[in-house]
Amino acid sequence: MSTEVNRRIRLRSRPAGRIDDTTFELVNEEVPVPGAGQALVRNLYLSIDPTNRVWIREEPSYLEPVAIGDVMRSGGIGRVVASSNDGFTEGDLVTGLLGWQDYVLVGEGQTTLAMPLPREIEAPIESLVGLLGITGLTAYFGIEDIGKPQAEETVVVSAAAGAVGSIAGQLAKLRGARVVGIAGGSDKCSWIVDELGFDAAVDRHDKRWRELLADACPDGVDVDFENVGGEIMDTVFGMLNLHARVVLCGLISQYNATEPVPGPTNFPRLLMHRVRMQGFIVIDYLPRYPEATAKLAQWAGEGKVKHRDTVVEGLEKAPEAVNMLFEGENVGKLMVKVGDGGAAGTQPANQG
Amino acid sequence: MSTEVNRRIRLRSRPAGRIDDTTFELVNEEVPVPGAGQALVRNLYLSIDPTNRVWIREEPSYLEPVAIGDVMRSGGIGRVVASSNDGFTEGDLVTGLLGWQDYVLVGEGQTTLAMPLPREIEAPIESLVGLLGITGLTAYFGIEDIGKPQAEETVVVSAAAGAVGSIAGQLAKLRGARVVGIAGGSDKCSWIVDELGFDAAVDRHDKRWRELLADACPDGVDVDFENVGGEIMDTVFGMLNLHARVVLCGLISQYNATEPVPGPTNFPRLLMHRVRMQGFIVIDYLPRYPEATAKLAQWAGEGKVKHRDTVVEGLEKAPEAVNMLFEGENVGKLMVKVGDGGAAGTQPANQG
Repeated sequence: MSTEVNRRIRLRSRPAGRIDDTTFELVNEEVPVPGAGQALVRNLYLSIDPTNRVWIREEPSYLEPVAIGDVMRSGGIGRVVASSNDGFTEGDLVTGLLGWQDYVLVGEGQTTLAMPLPREIEAPIESLVGLLGITGLTAYFGIEDIGKPQAEETVVVSAAAGAVGSIAGQLAKLRGARVVGIAGGSDKCSWIVDELGFDAAVDRHDKRWRELLADACPDGVDVDFENVGGEIMDTVFGMLNLHARVVLCGLISQYNATEPVPGPTNFPRLLMHRVRMQGFIVIDYLPRYPEATAKLAQWAGEGKVKHRDTVVEGLEKAPEAVNMLFEGENVGKLMVKVGDGGAAGTQPANQG
Repeated sequence: MSTEVNRRIRLRSRPAGRIDDTTFELVNEEVPVPGAGQALVRNLYLSIDPTNRVWIREEPSYLEPVAIGDVMRSGGIGRVVASSNDGFTEGDLVTGLLGWQDYVLVGEGQTTLAMPLPREIEAPIESLVGLLGITGLTAYFGIEDIGKPQAEETVVVSAAAGAVGSIAGQLAKLRGARVVGIAGGSDKCSWIVDELGFDAAVDRHDKRWRELLADACPDGVDVDFENVGGEIMDTVFGMLNLHARVVLCGLISQYNATEPVPGPTNFPRLLMHRVRMQGFIVIDYLPRYPEATAKLAQWAGEGKVKHRDTVVEGLEKAPEAVNMLFEGENVGKLMVKVGDGGAAGTQPANQG
């Protein structure tokens, strides 16, 4: 094993705004030994998501806040390195809320949510964290189950070069919709149009972004795939068409807020234009994950859905990686590589 | 006829805030003579609704604004007094957007939306304006089609002593839900609890209304039947349960606003608790009106749904009646009586 200790990142204090040096502490502990019914997992990749920031707020969200002193909660993928549980075999890849640590126990008596991935999957592990993980699933259910854009309808995706947005826009394109992405910076805008096939991109760093957005949506907006909130969401709300749908997926502009964030002033349009809005978190769709994963894998194999990953090396970089999300420093899926796990479906030469 | 002239109330200027003496003008015109394919309707009751105020704003809503100089748009009920149209027979009751006037032409070449009511209905005409009209239909579809409260769930209805709210709460009770109404003043609160069977009422004139509302909803809120908006809606948003539904029916607190109204600061809860919100206007449900009317008539006949009407006498009082809504001066359905039409289903002794 590459580490003799189990490095773990524990929450030390709740940040006001941005995560800083006082928010977490890295501690070295012993690598645990699995007891009866337990398995030991070596973490390989951690998924860095806006929701990490939500989980360390004081207020309960869809999960209880991470308690002060607890290991930071995080999605991730790891590999079983020892097991006394029939459900987990040595060498299995495991996905779940593995936490910011090198090793984690799963199975009986453990609170970590984890499940083995099917052994027949052949894909780089990065794909399993992003496109075929929570990220891709979120885009899938948001588009296919809530937004349901029809051919010729206009879909606006905010944070369109982000992990979920970049997939969501491509899924909307597959349904025949006209897709407009909002992203920060010309590189991201070029990427989503030239490589991913969005019909138009609006650079939110351009002072004229509102005007550009209006120009890009001459027929209004039928589906808002909302990842951002704040003034971007409010502006899109002001353009919603009759019977539009809002896929309320994320509000990243608000998660670092230290003051109450104003609500959308264009809210009345949701009434006047009879808009349906659905807040959703992908965990509600757990029973349908296999259906969605199969579809996404198929489309990726056919070259219909492309993705990009931003990989940060080293567990100790996880806190700063969360800040990267808020500063728009990632393109596509942001993840932290914790250990070297080889390809999916194969036994790694070096377990860790 | 009680009037030799056709009194008509035309929009003179768009109000900033409250309607005042400069907003409308009453003009006396000739009673029109129906041409080929047309029928002349004597208006009997005008429905006074928050949406009247919406229609005279500058901004388009779900219908185009009433143009300066046009007769004020309004729902209402009248009786055919002359007809050259096979679809309208003399003596028929007619419902539609009849406008603030004594007489209106319907049929070919006319833009007024109007349809005859079934002749077999036996009910006071007031019922047809309120319970069995747009008001009752709005409550019906909001509860039965959007909110769908289940037994034991908690439903909060704002403007609960108003036309729609008072019916909506009773329909939720019929589904077995626990219903909490928010209304202005102790009389209204007593009425909805003692006479209509709401489980609890919160007086929004009480300075402790937020606390009282929290006390009345110890298990949170599963359905928000929203008629008001503003701080009342925002407070209810803060109490929404996992997978709650928001029936976005009205935002009366905002229609008189002269400045942009802040949006709901508790908006993020709609995401975290995966809330479904549907803006709706009853006209989207036109094909299902017969189903709903039949149900409402049945429940009213069985004494399961009660209603109260506030009737203002005289066409010239219509503008001030709209202001009454915003000051909470009505209980139940507010309407203006324009002419004396007798009971439904019978030929009036005096046509007008």
